[in-house]
Amino acid sequence: MNNSSNSRREFMKTTAIVGGAVALGGVNLFGANASNALSKPTQNKPIKCKGWAAFDTSGVLKPYEFERRAVGKNDILIEIKFASICHSDIHQIKGDWGKQIYPQVPGHEIVGIVTQVGENVKNFKVGDRAGVGCMVDNFEGVRGDEQYDKNTLFTYGFVDKREPTGISQGGYSTHIVVNSHFAIKIPTNISFEEAVPLLCAGVTTYSPLMKYQIKKGDKVGVAGIGGLGHIAIKLAVSKGAKVYAFTTSKDKVADIKGFGASEVIVIEDALKNTQALDAYKGKLDYMISTIPVQFDVASYVSCVKPFGTFTQVGMSAKFELTLSNFGLAQSRVNLTASLIGDMKETQEVMDYCAKNKIYPKIEVIEAKEINKAWQKVLEKKARYRYVIDSASI
Amino acid sequence: MNNSSNSRREFMKTTAIVGGAVALGGVNLFGANASNALSKPTQNKPIKCKGWAAFDTSGVLKPYEFERRAVGKNDILIEIKFASICHSDIHQIKGDWGKQIYPQVPGHEIVGIVTQVGENVKNFKVGDRAGVGCMVDNFEGVRGDEQYDKNTLFTYGFVDKREPTGISQGGYSTHIVVNSHFAIKIPTNISFEEAVPLLCAGVTTYSPLMKYQIKKGDKVGVAGIGGLGHIAIKLAVSKGAKVYAFTTSKDKVADIKGFGASEVIVIEDALKNTQALDAYKGKLDYMISTIPVQFDVASYVSCVKPFGTFTQVGMSAKFELTLSNFGLAQSRVNLTASLIGDMKETQEVMDYCAKNKIYPKIEVIEAKEINKAWQKVLEKKARYRYVIDSASI
Repeated sequence: MNNSSNSRREFMKTTAIVGGAVALGGVNLFGANASNALSKPTQNKPIKCKGWAAFDTSGVLKPYEFERRAVGKNDILIEIKFASICHSDIHQIKGDWGKQIYPQVPGHEIVGIVTQVGENVKNFKVGDRAGVGCMVDNFEGVRGDEQYDKNTLFTYGFVDKREPTGISQGGYSTHIVVNSHFAIKIPTNISFEEAVPLLCAGVTTYSPLMKYQIKKGDKVGVAGIGGLGHIAIKLAVSKGAKVYAFTTSKDKVADIKGFGASEVIVIEDALKNTQALDAYKGKLDYMISTIPVQFDVASYVSCVKPFGTFTQVGMSAKFELTLSNFGLAQSRVNLTASLIGDMKETQEVMDYCAKNKIYPKIEVIEAKEINKAWQKVLEKKARYRYVIDSASI
Repeated sequence: MNNSSNSRREFMKTTAIVGGAVALGGVNLFGANASNALSKPTQNKPIKCKGWAAFDTSGVLKPYEFERRAVGKNDILIEIKFASICHSDIHQIKGDWGKQIYPQVPGHEIVGIVTQVGENVKNFKVGDRAGVGCMVDNFEGVRGDEQYDKNTLFTYGFVDKREPTGISQGGYSTHIVVNSHFAIKIPTNISFEEAVPLLCAGVTTYSPLMKYQIKKGDKVGVAGIGGLGHIAIKLAVSKGAKVYAFTTSKDKVADIKGFGASEVIVIEDALKNTQALDAYKGKLDYMISTIPVQFDVASYVSCVKPFGTFTQVGMSAKFELTLSNFGLAQSRVNLTASLIGDMKETQEVMDYCAKNKIYPKIEVIEAKEINKAWQKVLEKKARYRYVIDSASI
């Protein structure tokens, strides 16, 4: 235990003592239509936090002290225990998906203990184990398919005038304030460390696997075996599917078989050298790709049987996907993309994994190792999810 | 009538007198497995033809005299009456889809009169009205879904050792030799000129419209209103759909309403300025795009309702389609592409259009106008299909 985490605990003492919620009310931050649905501050004390933030597009994070908005009547405050690292964190912070506001604290896989609840909150009480994924609020109170609603506030980097820093700030941090609808319960039969990657990597793969109803005996392809892909394999295997795993990392083969894949196909280069896919043309019932960079989409898609479905969940720089529409036509496959999952599915995947002992393969790191870990993610060296111990922030 | 067409008729006299088919046999051109399925020459006289060919990637065509393979026992010889111009002709000849062999005669929308039949041919007799589309043979005798089979020989530019020029040569020509399975009957209740664009433009739009079962009352989008798009509108309208037509050509609006579209939406620029699409987000049951260049795919796709289907049939340079997979994910639409249609569908669309008086809007030109017509196609000035009168070649 180092000094910074000691001082963090001191800091915790100061903030955690805040008790009952007092409505400030009256301030309409998002226009007339939005006012009812929003969590207005219930006490006038912003929450002091520590975190690791980016200050520019360099992709280098540094310690950062900041404040979060006070806990509103529909909000809960979570003392974060662990947050994990998603490739998306790197893309967004580096500006791959558009210009960012800095300082910005990334992190959308978050677990911890509820330390305060707003007066309207019914689904959480102080002391509960809670998780937060990619979303923290919806300005219009939309429920269901939240990830597709334009009024949904994503976990970091999104403008939120209620926030002292002007934007939502993510989970590489000591605390988070979140509308209680956007938090899920973490069952007691799964550890915090193993639960945390399910908040994005888990639900992002679970949602399309369920939507396309993979079933016992189906031949399911999983392309890109990192944080998301390795969970996709475990989920598909748990449903009785025969999994074909496509990876560009030879040294992952043994691991991947350990996750339950029936076949592991090593692809030389996912963009330019995909000949190994030819043998699987038209063979699979369904395929999911977690590849978060440009790749030879049509060749991967062609592994699916005509009229089957291929789902892209990895998000590349600029969200750009370039494909041969001749190749797509020849495959006769439905190309779909999918964005995380909604809150109901997030709770579902958490409960399903806890019940079925489906655990991500993780490596717990201290906050000071974040920059090194990001580098390893980019070098495809993560095995398979880095989980930051928030006590080290 | 000019000198060249006079001399062409002289030329016709010489070739058209060839009668009964004599099997040469024995020469296995495509390896042991292929020998039975192929049409072997049934008489040793190659067919002398005139045509307009490209000699390089410039996109400029010039008159060209060449020979086609002799009529094999499964072949028919067609004296071409009309051939129409497809944007694909320009793409392929210019090398947009890969390196080409020259001289190359383009053209894959072809109609004419059967002047010779091979000894095995049962579906055609001399004097029949016949049409040829994008395919002329299959090296393995595959029937059904021929366009997706790797052994299918496309109408021009494909290596065919039987051909004196070494490649298949297309319809901007006086004659064509084709396996009789790859020719369709042209009913007598449709003119040759109006039938000819159905061989590619017709079947390419008919096939996905049928596959995705558009029905009375459906809201169907058609993007790109040229040779293919205007037929797509007429086909969808004939099935009772309410058609939303998306065009970048303001001056096509009146025509498009004439084709039966309920709404015409003018898009400033299909790649960079698509705001007019916003009002249609999630509104359509199905959408087909014939746009043959790069465009803002995700914005067009977003016009379809979640879980609906969007089909891309236009083929851009390099067949490349670049899209936002974030946008695709948000739309929750199935993105599909489709390649022409098979021979059964080609006959179907011809019969359907003849029966229902669905006629493409055409402009008949002489061969010497081909280069000017190509330029107009590129400038979006075709209204809506140029049809070459083969008598002028």
